[in-house]
Amino acid sequence: MSHSVFDGFLSTPQMQQLFSPVAIVQAMMDFEAALARAEARCGVIPHGAAQAISSLCRAELYDVTALVAASNSAGSLAIPLVRKLSETVALFDPAAAAYVHWGSTSQDVIDTAMVLQTRRALQLIESDLLALAGHLLDLADNYPATPLLARTLMQPAAVSSLRARACHWVLPLIRCAQALRQAGDAALQLQFGGAVGTLATLGEQADAVTAALAEELRLPAPAVPWHTQRDRWVRLGAELGVLCGSVGKLAQDLALLAQPELGEMAETSEAGRGGSSAMPHKRNPVFCMQALAAARRAPQRVAGLLACMTQEHERGLGNWQAELAEWSGLLLSVHGAVQSMAQALAAPRVDAARMRANIEAQRGLVFAEGLALLLAPLQGKAAAQALVEALCARVVAGDVALPVLARQLLKDEPALDAGALEAQFDVHRIACHADSRVDAALNGARQQWSRLHDTPHW
Amino acid sequence: MSHSVFDGFLSTPQMQQLFSPVAIVQAMMDFEAALARAEARCGVIPHGAAQAISSLCRAELYDVTALVAASNSAGSLAIPLVRKLSETVALFDPAAAAYVHWGSTSQDVIDTAMVLQTRRALQLIESDLLALAGHLLDLADNYPATPLLARTLMQPAAVSSLRARACHWVLPLIRCAQALRQAGDAALQLQFGGAVGTLATLGEQADAVTAALAEELRLPAPAVPWHTQRDRWVRLGAELGVLCGSVGKLAQDLALLAQPELGEMAETSEAGRGGSSAMPHKRNPVFCMQALAAARRAPQRVAGLLACMTQEHERGLGNWQAELAEWSGLLLSVHGAVQSMAQALAAPRVDAARMRANIEAQRGLVFAEGLALLLAPLQGKAAAQALVEALCARVVAGDVALPVLARQLLKDEPALDAGALEAQFDVHRIACHADSRVDAALNGARQQWSRLHDTPHW
Amino acid sequence: MSHSVFDGFLSTPQMQQLFSPVAIVQAMMDFEAALARAEARCGVIPHGAAQAISSLCRAELYDVTALVAASNSAGSLAIPLVRKLSETVALFDPAAAAYVHWGSTSQDVIDTAMVLQTRRALQLIESDLLALAGHLLDLADNYPATPLLARTLMQPAAVSSLRARACHWVLPLIRCAQALRQAGDAALQLQFGGAVGTLATLGEQADAVTAALAEELRLPAPAVPWHTQRDRWVRLGAELGVLCGSVGKLAQDLALLAQPELGEMAETSEAGRGGSSAMPHKRNPVFCMQALAAARRAPQRVAGLLACMTQEHERGLGNWQAELAEWSGLLLSVHGAVQSMAQALAAPRVDAARMRANIEAQRGLVFAEGLALLLAPLQGKAAAQALVEALCARVVAGDVALPVLARQLLKDEPALDAGALEAQFDVHRIACHADSRVDAALNGARQQWSRLHDTPHW
Amino acid sequence: MSHSVFDGFLSTPQMQQLFSPVAIVQAMMDFEAALARAEARCGVIPHGAAQAISSLCRAELYDVTALVAASNSAGSLAIPLVRKLSETVALFDPAAAAYVHWGSTSQDVIDTAMVLQTRRALQLIESDLLALAGHLLDLADNYPATPLLARTLMQPAAVSSLRARACHWVLPLIRCAQALRQAGDAALQLQFGGAVGTLATLGEQADAVTAALAEELRLPAPAVPWHTQRDRWVRLGAELGVLCGSVGKLAQDLALLAQPELGEMAETSEAGRGGSSAMPHKRNPVFCMQALAAARRAPQRVAGLLACMTQEHERGLGNWQAELAEWSGLLLSVHGAVQSMAQALAAPRVDAARMRANIEAQRGLVFAEGLALLLAPLQGKAAAQALVEALCARVVAGDVALPVLARQLLKDEPALDAGALEAQFDVHRIACHADSRVDAALNGARQQWSRLHDTPHW
Repeated sequence: MSHSVFDGFLSTPQMQQLFSPVAIVQAMMDFEAALARAEARCGVIPHGAAQAISSLCRAELYDVTALVAASNSAGSLAIPLVRKLSETVALFDPAAAAYVHWGSTSQDVIDTAMVLQTRRALQLIESDLLALAGHLLDLADNYPATPLLARTLMQPAAVSSLRARACHWVLPLIRCAQALRQAGDAALQLQFGGAVGTLATLGEQADAVTAALAEELRLPAPAVPWHTQRDRWVRLGAELGVLCGSVGKLAQDLALLAQPELGEMAETSEAGRGGSSAMPHKRNPVFCMQALAAARRAPQRVAGLLACMTQEHERGLGNWQAELAEWSGLLLSVHGAVQSMAQALAAPRVDAARMRANIEAQRGLVFAEGLALLLAPLQGKAAAQALVEALCARVVAGDVALPVLARQLLKDEPALDAGALEAQFDVHRIACHADSRVDAALNGARQQWSRLHDTPHW
Repeated sequence: MSHSVFDGFLSTPQMQQLFSPVAIVQAMMDFEAALARAEARCGVIPHGAAQAISSLCRAELYDVTALVAASNSAGSLAIPLVRKLSETVALFDPAAAAYVHWGSTSQDVIDTAMVLQTRRALQLIESDLLALAGHLLDLADNYPATPLLARTLMQPAAVSSLRARACHWVLPLIRCAQALRQAGDAALQLQFGGAVGTLATLGEQADAVTAALAEELRLPAPAVPWHTQRDRWVRLGAELGVLCGSVGKLAQDLALLAQPELGEMAETSEAGRGGSSAMPHKRNPVFCMQALAAARRAPQRVAGLLACMTQEHERGLGNWQAELAEWSGLLLSVHGAVQSMAQALAAPRVDAARMRANIEAQRGLVFAEGLALLLAPLQGKAAAQALVEALCARVVAGDVALPVLARQLLKDEPALDAGALEAQFDVHRIACHADSRVDAALNGARQQWSRLHDTPHW
Repeated sequence: MSHSVFDGFLSTPQMQQLFSPVAIVQAMMDFEAALARAEARCGVIPHGAAQAISSLCRAELYDVTALVAASNSAGSLAIPLVRKLSETVALFDPAAAAYVHWGSTSQDVIDTAMVLQTRRALQLIESDLLALAGHLLDLADNYPATPLLARTLMQPAAVSSLRARACHWVLPLIRCAQALRQAGDAALQLQFGGAVGTLATLGEQADAVTAALAEELRLPAPAVPWHTQRDRWVRLGAELGVLCGSVGKLAQDLALLAQPELGEMAETSEAGRGGSSAMPHKRNPVFCMQALAAARRAPQRVAGLLACMTQEHERGLGNWQAELAEWSGLLLSVHGAVQSMAQALAAPRVDAARMRANIEAQRGLVFAEGLALLLAPLQGKAAAQALVEALCARVVAGDVALPVLARQLLKDEPALDAGALEAQFDVHRIACHADSRVDAALNGARQQWSRLHDTPHW
Repeated sequence: MSHSVFDGFLSTPQMQQLFSPVAIVQAMMDFEAALARAEARCGVIPHGAAQAISSLCRAELYDVTALVAASNSAGSLAIPLVRKLSETVALFDPAAAAYVHWGSTSQDVIDTAMVLQTRRALQLIESDLLALAGHLLDLADNYPATPLLARTLMQPAAVSSLRARACHWVLPLIRCAQALRQAGDAALQLQFGGAVGTLATLGEQADAVTAALAEELRLPAPAVPWHTQRDRWVRLGAELGVLCGSVGKLAQDLALLAQPELGEMAETSEAGRGGSSAMPHKRNPVFCMQALAAARRAPQRVAGLLACMTQEHERGLGNWQAELAEWSGLLLSVHGAVQSMAQALAAPRVDAARMRANIEAQRGLVFAEGLALLLAPLQGKAAAQALVEALCARVVAGDVALPVLARQLLKDEPALDAGALEAQFDVHRIACHADSRVDAALNGARQQWSRLHDTPHW
């Protein structure tokens, strides 16, 4: 329980754990241990010192709460941590204590710790993201030729298909999974520059220590430190924001479809989830709720990261520190959203009969575009459009359905083909056409999904 | 330690405490206890039931961590809390358990708990804000007639005074303190509407129970519940954002003045604060750092609150929940900023000699405006401006200082008054004029400060 | 057409006009003219000069496009404007040219011009806001005792009333109208400080000129200039953001209610509005569209204003300039939203029959809370809640409606009062109760609206 | 002059031109012409009709102002444009008019027009970005072994070099140029889906027409339309935000270095640029101003784009429209920033002597880290740190410089190597070391720059 009640409520226990004080302190300790080992391997510090330091870099040996409390007055969590680690090493091996944190600086250890935890975070996110994408691919497979009312500007527009919708939902998620790997690879690099980015203390051995340290932590070493040049880091953050947007779009659609007046689809129903403290009948779409909350918050987190990029000189005043806080907040949000939607789509309720009924309730209005285009070459566009609008107005006013009215045109308009007219009203045909528009994309998506799934990355 | 490492690092222990899980749960319990008492007073539930409920509304009796963990799957913290409270009451008084949370809903208890904690939060913020304002008023008092180089677009502009600067710093803070009281009074109202805002369950007694509950919690009761109409609440949030901006402006100025190349002012220096893990000589402006971090983050928090206002129907899906998380994040940030700057200005270092030296180093360039205005009526504006620009160019190129060059004009320009000319270069006179421009405002500010200070509000 | 296609599309012609280049230049000219007159009145500059200057401060005399183009390389629109004005004055009265812009600075003229245009903007916004509020008050009046399904988390919750909903919609708008007057009064002040805020050039006459200038422009004069202390200005901006949120909430609700599957309400229908380039039957809620677009954008605008508050020293580098651009963008958005919703609610379609039908379609589920609370004292809360949940599950599974099932309980539960039971299912009674909860608030709102309406402010 | 005064002020004429009403309308006309030609090639519409349509798709034939004005009430700019185009075609070829916009929808033409203009916008941005990067690479080349005081948390930290700083500035810009190409390639795709994304009207010819249309417009065709799945589009927007952050960091640094009290570097000085309306001597860093303004605004624009991603069903209500407005605003900002900094660095003033003098003014304090690390193995870390802090305190208090004090240690600490000690104070050696840390990265950057420069992409 290391985050605020309401942040935690909108996240997952796993992600909260990754950014808990203990986990952050351990990741910092991992950096210090790896640094000592790397420097010993390069002959910069004695092997014995490295061994002494390394063996004491275990968070459970320290009062993490006290370290965190001390960070505030110190101005950095690294300062009390390095001090405490040095003191502890000194208890066992006084000479070794001098080599704690050798040649490094606060930002090295904090940034690298964040990189290490972010790598784990991306693993969590990808795992749930692929699960979610898999559920959507299954949805597309399981519902061929299923007519679905397409809606634009929140009004019925024309008939499409559930498979087409599922395809549109899943493609960006697979793109996001790929983009996260790419952005993650670029961003998750060792931070190691010493006081001002030049590793002045290490002199000729700077390259060797950097390489050894990177190897110890299984991180790539950048060409130069990235302490105040956060573009790759923020690009990863922005990518997480884009993911939230894509997941939020899915949640928005699902919440709309789950309104009982539409009743076309609903998220996985679980005992004890989505109830109300006042209303016994309530089944709230609480998975969607998590994703929609994240979709509201992530843009602000990304803006925060971007706003913090103007870090002064060789280390920013306030902006670096603000970025760290925004960063962990973003990851908490994103995982809450992705995991929730993976659960929401694990066993979604799909009501194909309601989908069809809602189309029928439109009484043919949603075929207006097809009708107008059929008439346009015969009557001129303006006349055709006007005629169809007039027919639609009669339908809305309570007349018979549009197809019935349209068939009455056949006698006055001999050039109108009866078969072509009926095709405009054939929802099965329309749904099959909609399916056909996405088949290739879905096949591609399935292959990309399998490749992602079968090649663990993080 | 109930917030993320990096959020906590940028806040205060007191504010973290107010929004800790235990404190939130206790505030929710306070609502439930008050509700039971109020309903008993109105004859809605039995007195015995109210007593049983009320006596068990103590957070320390419950496993808060488990409640918070359960909130995620329940979709609301209120649901497990009410269930656990009901179960616990049932152990002692089975009949009473039926009356737990009677007629209320999750949002009532959560919103009101947030109101209760926010009231305490505003008290913390105001206390430090008034301390900060007091230090600035003292600064203005302590440094009369102290010339300070005014800078525009980050370049030297003309001479002003430290008192004028201090006045500009303090006025918005006093306005913020007043505005927070006003916005707080409007926002800190009981939330009580039952399932959909109509208190349907309470029938004719809805008004009476509302009044009694408001009295129990020492909160005003709004004309109607504000569950999805968050304007007053968000207005308070925006006000906190404005405060962060004003405090951030102060911190930005102080950080700039504290650059050793300027060296005019610096924040309070404290042993052990502002050091570096790498550089023994460092004295980082870590108080300013906190405020600057908040100034980067608060705008995003306010944007988050505003973005969450479009809550659907009688309770939003995702946006209400997101708002709660943004809200506590904002309060954490704001207090970190305000308390830090109160400490930064408690014993600031002021170097009036450096202020004067930096003016002198400008070699008279900062008197250019005055000189040009003196010449304009004599030579025409364009000619005067061109002449002064040419003189300035000579100064920049290494010639003697502008006053020296200007005095050479006296022989060619008989209409130029030597006394008026010298006055343009008289920094003492200019600083006194700058002081005089703010005297009335400072007096007013001191009085308002005293009034605020002497009439505790929260 | 002085704004981007897409900004303009989401705004109104009137507001675009107010912030057009010509209007901004004229407002700046108004400042220069007023300054000259004020300084002449105080004996600072010759009366003849003031007359010459004042008579030439007319935007139509200048090539506004060229002025705006020159602003970019000059770094401020004031610089080419003052130069051109001076040159023009010199053509007629060479001596007078020296007194153009006397003692003032770019920020004085630009900030004050923005204040002048913002005052006009607030008038536009208030006018449409009061129209909108009036329509909502009428809606509440016109639909007494009209049951409306209340929805929480986008699911049916319980029965409320249209009047209650209308009341919740209108109250924040009236609060916003009041708050805008208050925030506007605080923010719309003369900016006049000269180069660095001290009016150094004007010496002893600074106060007199300030007062005269304020009088000329019918603006209050602040105690001190507010050039880098933008709290009152940003507070007004935040207030506009809150207004957008409240209007956006209304638009969100209306767009949801207008889904034909709900079909309970829709915005004013106008010929030629809301059509589609492809679908002849479409009637898109384009008024809501405008408001929802603003609700997405305004939070970012407010964040932009807040982020710009940390202006360095006596004039910011980049942040002041960025704020000006965000400011006009915000006003464009807000007016688009408010005017659109005033039109949307001018003649809304209300379908009370559909409202009732949608309640009935719930088959009594939305009475579950009332039923559970009725049973709780008889059976214990947990048992009652479980029983009602079980009954609800039967209804959902296709059994008879909840009231029918509930009536069957009467024979097993003699303590259950038949009348009280029926009352739970009486939608008329429930709607009347909901109405009664808002009557006082509506009366108050109507009075406040009349007061606002009858006392023009701007 | 098609944008607001203040947006335009912070942008460039070229970018304003690209998003002017005329240019947008022409791009939409280009889509309609290409659509007609493509459909004729596929036999969907008569060749004659395509020719008639295509020949009239010229913006200069229409009253663009009227079209834009009509867009507001129509709810989309495409509606009046298609209507007017159809009417105009009908004047010449009544039959052809039926085929205008055949099978397409508003979003197709608007989104694709934005893609076309964005492609041109990226060309503008890249051109200036490469110019800027080239200037920075030259800066690095021209100033080898030039010591520069590195500053952290806005305080002097240690010595680095100008070449190292230039390298850190340029690398992210080259990464951004590469990333923009990649993100642009992914985002700049044809939008073509018809009413609801299924191209229902085109039936079997949907693929062929799509391919032909893409070819006509030299745009790739996506696997499926991206109307409500904006991830690639927003990813490009985020990339532009990252670019603004990197450019803003450069501007922030330059503005700080240009403070005359530091005086180490300044932007290109141009006659007539950076003056003041009040102060003749002013040389404001107005290029930096533009970039800093963009760095404040771009995060909000990106947040706006992200917030608009939750577009409902097959076309969003308000969010799509809001996104378009945010999009053009972002591009205006970005180009203003990049072009300005390219100008700022075209002929920067570099004062290596002041750089060295500012280091010397630190009186050795900035060598403290090196000294402490030298002593740590001899005395233990804590003792070494304490000793150096004590020496620093003496320097600050007015004693001799740190090197002098340090040399006094030689007599008490025989293990201290005099040569190693002196090396700590050798700024030339330190600057050369700093240079050496970036040599490889700079070589790589130069090569990447050449590759980008020599292979025009857009």
